[in-house]
Amino acid sequence: MTTSNLPFGLDEYDARLAKVRAAMEQADCDVLVVTDPANMAWLTGYDGWSFYVHQAVIVGPSGPPLWWGRAMDALGALRTVYMQSEAVFGYEDTFVQNPDKHPMEDLARLLAAQGWAGARIGLEMDNYYFTAAAYMSLVQELPDAKWVNANVLVNWQRAVKSPTEITYMRRAAKIVENMHATILDRAEPGMKKNHLIAEIYHAAITGVDGHWGDYPSIVPLAPSGKDATAPHLTWDDSELQAGEATFFEIAGVHRRYHAPQSRTLFFGEPPAKYRAAEAAVIEAVAAGMEQAKPGNFAEDISNAFNATLNKLGFEKDSRCGYPIGLSYPPDWGEHTFSLRRDDKTVLEPGMTFHFMPALWLDDGGIEITEPVLITETGAENLCSTPHGLMVKG
Amino acid sequence: MTTSNLPFGLDEYDARLAKVRAAMEQADCDVLVVTDPANMAWLTGYDGWSFYVHQAVIVGPSGPPLWWGRAMDALGALRTVYMQSEAVFGYEDTFVQNPDKHPMEDLARLLAAQGWAGARIGLEMDNYYFTAAAYMSLVQELPDAKWVNANVLVNWQRAVKSPTEITYMRRAAKIVENMHATILDRAEPGMKKNHLIAEIYHAAITGVDGHWGDYPSIVPLAPSGKDATAPHLTWDDSELQAGEATFFEIAGVHRRYHAPQSRTLFFGEPPAKYRAAEAAVIEAVAAGMEQAKPGNFAEDISNAFNATLNKLGFEKDSRCGYPIGLSYPPDWGEHTFSLRRDDKTVLEPGMTFHFMPALWLDDGGIEITEPVLITETGAENLCSTPHGLMVKG
Repeated sequence: MTTSNLPFGLDEYDARLAKVRAAMEQADCDVLVVTDPANMAWLTGYDGWSFYVHQAVIVGPSGPPLWWGRAMDALGALRTVYMQSEAVFGYEDTFVQNPDKHPMEDLARLLAAQGWAGARIGLEMDNYYFTAAAYMSLVQELPDAKWVNANVLVNWQRAVKSPTEITYMRRAAKIVENMHATILDRAEPGMKKNHLIAEIYHAAITGVDGHWGDYPSIVPLAPSGKDATAPHLTWDDSELQAGEATFFEIAGVHRRYHAPQSRTLFFGEPPAKYRAAEAAVIEAVAAGMEQAKPGNFAEDISNAFNATLNKLGFEKDSRCGYPIGLSYPPDWGEHTFSLRRDDKTVLEPGMTFHFMPALWLDDGGIEITEPVLITETGAENLCSTPHGLMVKG
Repeated sequence: MTTSNLPFGLDEYDARLAKVRAAMEQADCDVLVVTDPANMAWLTGYDGWSFYVHQAVIVGPSGPPLWWGRAMDALGALRTVYMQSEAVFGYEDTFVQNPDKHPMEDLARLLAAQGWAGARIGLEMDNYYFTAAAYMSLVQELPDAKWVNANVLVNWQRAVKSPTEITYMRRAAKIVENMHATILDRAEPGMKKNHLIAEIYHAAITGVDGHWGDYPSIVPLAPSGKDATAPHLTWDDSELQAGEATFFEIAGVHRRYHAPQSRTLFFGEPPAKYRAAEAAVIEAVAAGMEQAKPGNFAEDISNAFNATLNKLGFEKDSRCGYPIGLSYPPDWGEHTFSLRRDDKTVLEPGMTFHFMPALWLDDGGIEITEPVLITETGAENLCSTPHGLMVKG
């Protein structure tokens, strides 16, 4: 336990645990097995790249959370979590990637030893780090338990950010602003894409104003030309071309808190179609932002956005945003609500989301996106980068 | 389809598909649902950061593989896979992170439409990207199917690398050598850790000899001092200290092929205990490498390594290596065999592994690790970095 390095005070961890226990009661869970690395970190302070093996934080009806994982990673837990060593459990290394036994057999023994073999146990059923095999193993090992789908139960408790969390996100927002400034400064026709990505990473990890950069949960996405018709392609060594557009979907990150922001760069004056798309997106975003305030629904933002976009002759058939904050690969979204029709999530002060009005056109893409905070009276863009296309040369 | 950009020739993809179909027959599968992003890429060429939503490649009894995923990512599939557009299927965006419906309902419809509703269908049960909820959804939607655990079935077909794969890994090995040279050049006492990580990333993505760097499946791990007693902690902005050790577990990556290599840096002369550990590791690795040859078992390497290490007064209670090659986050290991006691995997020419003899001591860690290729007669270290501790100042 190295509380001096904890990103939050013990009172904040206590409050989080109480919120989760209240949600567990609502969901009829006695015990919760938390496998999402962001949820594990939010509940305990645990931070390490060990989620490639099975691990969990277990919240029981009382007492501190328990950390459980590979024995070598229990040492990392002891250096990062706020709990004492009695709450940290490591399993033997032969459980790792062994077809003859599954680490969840060890977790089942731990749960039984705590007296929870017949408990109502919540599981994050659709989390990357809770596989089908993990589930089957638990079900087999604890036949008397009652299993509850507690997917995104903890994620929902993370939706409203604390002042310290918002501070970290503001720092992340400054970092991503600087990353885009770096792009505008360094990019030029003939430059190999990977060389530009190297500069982006350098700016991301260096950070700004003395605040260090952490790794992003999604690598920089920077497709050019026709490749920008697809949203999630990564880079190679092809050269940036005069007359071509590239979008940069990137995030600044500080202490695992993300501020994603995207911009689209043209070398030379953008074609009229792109200028029209730019104007439409800016107007539609403004319409959406007017609806971004406490008491409104998530869908109010997307409905206003889409109505304006359609009026201006463009369409977007995917959601236009999602909550952000603390995250680990492979996603910086929080997997709770979405900015899309029929999402009746009520917006509250302290919620944060990535307003993501990306358009993928038939010959390229345009992304002008922002990290947004719901305030007491409306919404605040955490970044102050000028809106609109970035044009160079 | 942009075959000119494919990392491998069509004949190689054909051969891979044939190998997988033979393994499917052995495993009594008619159809295989492949959710591991590395397996998807290896079978089809697909490459994109879209594995944070549900997606798959489906191998049926005949014909090309099918790519299935989110509609917006189908556009990325069309730009990266070798198959024609008839083999690419996108699902509607409202399936994304929606508690009321699961994308696997859409996959079930696709499988049924192909005539496979009653087939024997193989699933990668312990893959990160095949969740408990995904499995439950498929089971519910296709009650007549017979489900087969085909975990790591495709991974095993990837174990022996082709000449082109080995070429990519040699390039990756040159990149990681250069990353360690960058560390030795730039690191100095008082430097903030994140500033050094920024330099490491810059070297990683820039690449060497005109070969570009891709993103690593694990971020650079670089714990110092006491933090190095734990293997998987990432960085912050603490300053490098004179008299302290830092280990760097990093990989060079080219076209998703990884060459991990670790070194440990001391500022000043290492204490006698670390010099003793260094000598023990080097001697134990040499003993292990003598056993690394075709026809031997995987455990022959670790048994020789551990016997020598123990003789010299050190112990390691975790596996000392695992296969490497093509990978996506969160892991660069292939999840097939391990270098540990009782692993009777027979080594073959073209297999590649990370020989990972890390020691975590009570006051720090020492990592001197290498990417290794099994040759016709023995084994080759893909890197030529000098063994031993890196000492500066």
